Amino acid sequence: MATSSGRVDTPFFMPIATKAAIKSLTVAEVKDLGAQIILSNTYHNYLRPGVSTIKKFGGLHQFMNCDLPILTDSGGYQVFSLSNLRKIKGNNIEFRSHIDGSLQILNPKKVIDIQGALGSDIMMVLDECVGLPTTKKKAQEALERTHRWAKMSIDYKKKLGLKSVKIRKQLLFGIVQGADFKDLRLQSAQYLGGLDFDGLAVGGLAVGESTKTMYEVLKYTVPALPENKPHYLMGVGYPENIIAAVKYGIDMFDCVIPTREARHGKLYIANGKLLMASGQVNYKTISITNAKFAKDKSPINKDHPLLKQYSKAYLHHLFKTQEPLALRLATLNNLKFYLDLMKEIRRAIKVGKL
Amino acid sequence: MATSSGRVDTPFFMPIATKAAIKSLTVAEVKDLGAQIILSNTYHNYLRPGVSTIKKFGGLHQFMNCDLPILTDSGGYQVFSLSNLRKIKGNNIEFRSHIDGSLQILNPKKVIDIQGALGSDIMMVLDECVGLPTTKKKAQEALERTHRWAKMSIDYKKKLGLKSVKIRKQLLFGIVQGADFKDLRLQSAQYLGGLDFDGLAVGGLAVGESTKTMYEVLKYTVPALPENKPHYLMGVGYPENIIAAVKYGIDMFDCVIPTREARHGKLYIANGKLLMASGQVNYKTISITNAKFAKDKSPINKDHPLLKQYSKAYLHHLFKTQEPLALRLATLNNLKFYLDLMKEIRRAIKVGKL
Repeated sequence: MATSSGRVDTPFFMPIATKAAIKSLTVAEVKDLGAQIILSNTYHNYLRPGVSTIKKFGGLHQFMNCDLPILTDSGGYQVFSLSNLRKIKGNNIEFRSHIDGSLQILNPKKVIDIQGALGSDIMMVLDECVGLPTTKKKAQEALERTHRWAKMSIDYKKKLGLKSVKIRKQLLFGIVQGADFKDLRLQSAQYLGGLDFDGLAVGGLAVGESTKTMYEVLKYTVPALPENKPHYLMGVGYPENIIAAVKYGIDMFDCVIPTREARHGKLYIANGKLLMASGQVNYKTISITNAKFAKDKSPINKDHPLLKQYSKAYLHHLFKTQEPLALRLATLNNLKFYLDLMKEIRRAIKVGKL
Repeated sequence: MATSSGRVDTPFFMPIATKAAIKSLTVAEVKDLGAQIILSNTYHNYLRPGVSTIKKFGGLHQFMNCDLPILTDSGGYQVFSLSNLRKIKGNNIEFRSHIDGSLQILNPKKVIDIQGALGSDIMMVLDECVGLPTTKKKAQEALERTHRWAKMSIDYKKKLGLKSVKIRKQLLFGIVQGADFKDLRLQSAQYLGGLDFDGLAVGGLAVGESTKTMYEVLKYTVPALPENKPHYLMGVGYPENIIAAVKYGIDMFDCVIPTREARHGKLYIANGKLLMASGQVNYKTISITNAKFAKDKSPINKDHPLLKQYSKAYLHHLFKTQEPLALRLATLNNLKFYLDLMKEIRRAIKVGKL
């Protein structure tokens, strides 16, 4: 996939820099792990540091010192999950900032404008994501709004020609919704697939449903998407979910799991060869805070120049004493795992084994 | 000064790794800044991870992956300041752990044993540090105990021949106390100076007294110490205190200021040439959380390969959003300042300007 900041090999995983920073790591460090692109968030950057600051720097890349491509999520999910007193009035979402309670308004055009100022390589349209389980009526209403907003977004972007960002070409992705209703998902895939988007995301998954439901939705939704455009599964997931989704035709992933679980001392560890001939991921997770690691002299990860220098016992100690270095080493470990997994998947695809 | 882990140029500043970790940084990173030696703490390492874990690794250097010399403070100060229900019974200090409330005992010999297991390059004797202001009676009692313990420590170390750590030669320093009473300080300097210590520390300062009092104590204490042994001023201080103390004949420093203030967003910034011809330190501190830095495009520090890549505005943002990268960059900045200052001081001494 070509972006203004460089080519990205699919399928790929995007480390998360929601608030314009990866938890405790520099972009250079995740690039060293094999990250090709990162994800940030329109809603969060809009509230803080704010568009005027980002504009002063000429974009998010410059502000956060990032030489990798950046995808910015639209913030639809955050507006619907984080903010209080949310009201939809026509195309405007009125909400209170989760930071200072101030009254804020977002709408599809404004979200494009903000992402124009952010200068992200891939912009996402504003959508309405409903949690699962939900009723068909709710799902349908949300879908109609999502479609109306998608059309509005793409038309606005074309009209604008993105004058605010003169040099960078920014891609725009649509987001397929429809909860776990097959007819709605197919309708959404067909409608959005017919618009001039650069890629299509499957949204509204990993929002409370079972893995079985998630796979069912993917099974009928992905084949209905245009084959020649990248397919992005938002917010998923565990390693086995990623493998399964790749098989269903997904090219792009993001997820908080590796960074969030690192914070709680849960480490992803490969058991020998990461990807088995069966297509299964060969791994385990450990809770490094468990007493059994208190004297474990084995390295955190023998295949990483920094992580091989520290024992599991030392990382256990860092967590027990709440030393900030703990988060850094654990996050590095988990992102390495996820990025290694994607490398293995790409290799397997290349040789026809996946 | 020669240590088992290498030569150290005086005067020097020791970054603090109280709990066997520098706040958010690796030892390699502070070494890159010019750190020659770091400080850890006997009391903290004794409670967590504990001696048996450290022994399993063959010492603190191996446990925390540190190829720099390590000085371990005895923990006297921590026992007297952190622990509850402290009782002195003969040579034993009975106290409750500040972590789990368990009953613990330390005494001068045990503190040597623990430091033997830690394998630190410089061990400190157990002493009794009294806060200021204090009465002469209290200061005198604490001093008598400190002297008795110092003699006991040095005799014990000799007798032991430090069999527990077969290869490493560990230095042992005495700690001069006496509060702000000239006769007590001189008595302490003379007594401890007469024992076979490898260096002498001035303890019991930066414990509540005015800067004037601190300087007065140094003025009469340091000349009373053996000239041919290193002089270590414990827990001091601001840049101007360090310069002043160097002039009074101090060779070694440690202080939490650069790391602790980094945590609160207070940054040390050199104003052009750090050390002026007058011998004053040319610097300012800024509170990066202040709104005036929200759009400041200037680099955090133009003379550091990582810090020059990030703006003050970005660091402001990281603090405002409580991103863990904030602590890392701020700590790096402040330790760089302190270590640069020591380099400048050493250079000035070499050319006879200090």
